Amino acid sequence: MSTSHDTIRPIEWTGKTLRLIDQRCLPLTLAHVECASAAEVAAAIRGMVVRGAPAIGIAAAWGVVLAARDAPSDIEPALATLADARPTAVNLAWALARMRAVITGHGIDVIALTREARAIQDEDLAANRRMGMLGAALIAPGSIVLTHCNTGSLATAGFGTALGVIRQGWSEGRLRAVYATETRPWLQGSRLTAWELKQDGIPVTLIADGASAFLMRTRRIDWVIVGADRVAANGDTANKIGTCALAVLARQLGARVMVVAPVSTIDPALPDGAGIPVETRSAEELLSVGGLAVGTPGTAVWNPVFDITPAGLIDALVTERGVVMPPDRAGIVRILAETGSTACPDSPGVGVSI
Amino acid sequence: MSTSHDTIRPIEWTGKTLRLIDQRCLPLTLAHVECASAAEVAAAIRGMVVRGAPAIGIAAAWGVVLAARDAPSDIEPALATLADARPTAVNLAWALARMRAVITGHGIDVIALTREARAIQDEDLAANRRMGMLGAALIAPGSIVLTHCNTGSLATAGFGTALGVIRQGWSEGRLRAVYATETRPWLQGSRLTAWELKQDGIPVTLIADGASAFLMRTRRIDWVIVGADRVAANGDTANKIGTCALAVLARQLGARVMVVAPVSTIDPALPDGAGIPVETRSAEELLSVGGLAVGTPGTAVWNPVFDITPAGLIDALVTERGVVMPPDRAGIVRILAETGSTACPDSPGVGVSI
Repeated sequence: MSTSHDTIRPIEWTGKTLRLIDQRCLPLTLAHVECASAAEVAAAIRGMVVRGAPAIGIAAAWGVVLAARDAPSDIEPALATLADARPTAVNLAWALARMRAVITGHGIDVIALTREARAIQDEDLAANRRMGMLGAALIAPGSIVLTHCNTGSLATAGFGTALGVIRQGWSEGRLRAVYATETRPWLQGSRLTAWELKQDGIPVTLIADGASAFLMRTRRIDWVIVGADRVAANGDTANKIGTCALAVLARQLGARVMVVAPVSTIDPALPDGAGIPVETRSAEELLSVGGLAVGTPGTAVWNPVFDITPAGLIDALVTERGVVMPPDRAGIVRILAETGSTACPDSPGVGVSI
Repeated sequence: MSTSHDTIRPIEWTGKTLRLIDQRCLPLTLAHVECASAAEVAAAIRGMVVRGAPAIGIAAAWGVVLAARDAPSDIEPALATLADARPTAVNLAWALARMRAVITGHGIDVIALTREARAIQDEDLAANRRMGMLGAALIAPGSIVLTHCNTGSLATAGFGTALGVIRQGWSEGRLRAVYATETRPWLQGSRLTAWELKQDGIPVTLIADGASAFLMRTRRIDWVIVGADRVAANGDTANKIGTCALAVLARQLGARVMVVAPVSTIDPALPDGAGIPVETRSAEELLSVGGLAVGTPGTAVWNPVFDITPAGLIDALVTERGVVMPPDRAGIVRILAETGSTACPDSPGVGVSI
């Protein structure tokens, strides 16, 4: 496999510091933030230098390494600061739990903690590569795909989930064209996905979110490929707002829907999507763009961060342990039963969307 | 009927000048531009001080009055300048044709031309009020509606088309809630519709375009109410990009779709929507917002201005001469057969979207 379409690594452990791509500056500037302490890692997570649930978890794990090096006698304040950096990012708690398990087993052992942080990062990358292979195999040569939000290298250790499938599909010559939504309100599509694909030499065409139906009606879109924030036991999927619309449109207009997410995203305790709480965020996210006020001040806004796509609208759920096609309760039980060391079915929500 | 929800008039003839709401400054500032010559009117149209096809046509008609007053011996250069101000706005050509017919009949007669400009403006307002009544009558009390783009007072002589129906429905106490999409890429929803409804005391809640499906799944949306740029003989409708997606989603998720447009928007020469050319615009509209670069520079963008909604997804076509429900070839023929003095079936495209 060519690696020429996979060059971006948002998180780099230098041996002394954690070097992060500053995603606040993208797409206009590629800058880095160098974190020399757990507090600086926490600040980088809080300040959105790094985003995407897997990437946040990995960064936090390295923060624990820095805390163990700097304050081996009193690591608890640093762990608490890291845990509070983005309280809603469940992958953060999951990664910290893995680091804490090492402390429980070995004490404050910098070498053991470094090994675990490295493992968390490497396992994420390996899972993404595996999902890339499995997902790309579903795509017929000459296909046109559409993706939503940013689920790429920037949101993970590297390669990405849904965007990893596109990366792999492009490397294998299966894709005739790649479309990406701009993904309002945070513009992850135009800011991050477009930047990332440009860096890696994969041509992409951006559309307004509202143009998706007309795109499907005027060009044959073969697959809509998205990530997931949480997948219920029946396959209902929470993902970035706009996903549900794309899935309904795809079903009506002849495209298929692929959800790409590691098994840690599956929450078997949730029978269906009705139990997934939907966070709504501030009006300002819609009324301003990049700090510039654009909308009518004081307007009421309904701004849900994600939506729930019914399993019945999803054609394939791609995990690092296999594909469930179509996703249903039995297939998901089967995937979870194959659980190996990287599984954490009791730690849901390890998705890739911010 | 209360007029408390109908206060905005974007175009005002002062007797000496044409006073326009400067829509470039909305929603943050309510400023006016005073045009004292045909050239200034043309510049205001070209510069987007005034937008919305009916509003552009009305402004151009007053521009002819100014030209007749200032240069009665040589009015042709002014007519040409006005016609070129927004070449794609067909309503501009239609209004100028009406003014030219007066010149053909009466010569350069400022009084006759003033009468015709006033008639164009008044007929538009009257048509909008009539469509408001007819459309609102379709809405059951307690309904929740969703609109797209700006089809309101700002886009017309006043009152609006689709937004006129909402204005009327609110005045009659039929509406429990009004939602509006922000309408990327030009943000007519958050910039203009939200401003206009706020001015007129009609509560509105804004959503990202991508949130429409989740809105329909979590709240019962009774009607999606939109305008039209052009309606084919079979009812296929060209309107602001995003309309087709809303119509597909509405059909799947239990909402009905109402298209509100004057009969002049109907193009009986077009058998169906396949014949409607779709203008695509620059990448910059998506890659920047309000002059601020937000997207990845150099990204390819597919940016169609409008899309085509198949007649089969439209539940009601509301015109000033009656409702076609559902819109079909026979019903549209019937509406056109009732043509009175305001009809201009050979001058298609008098829509309200920019």
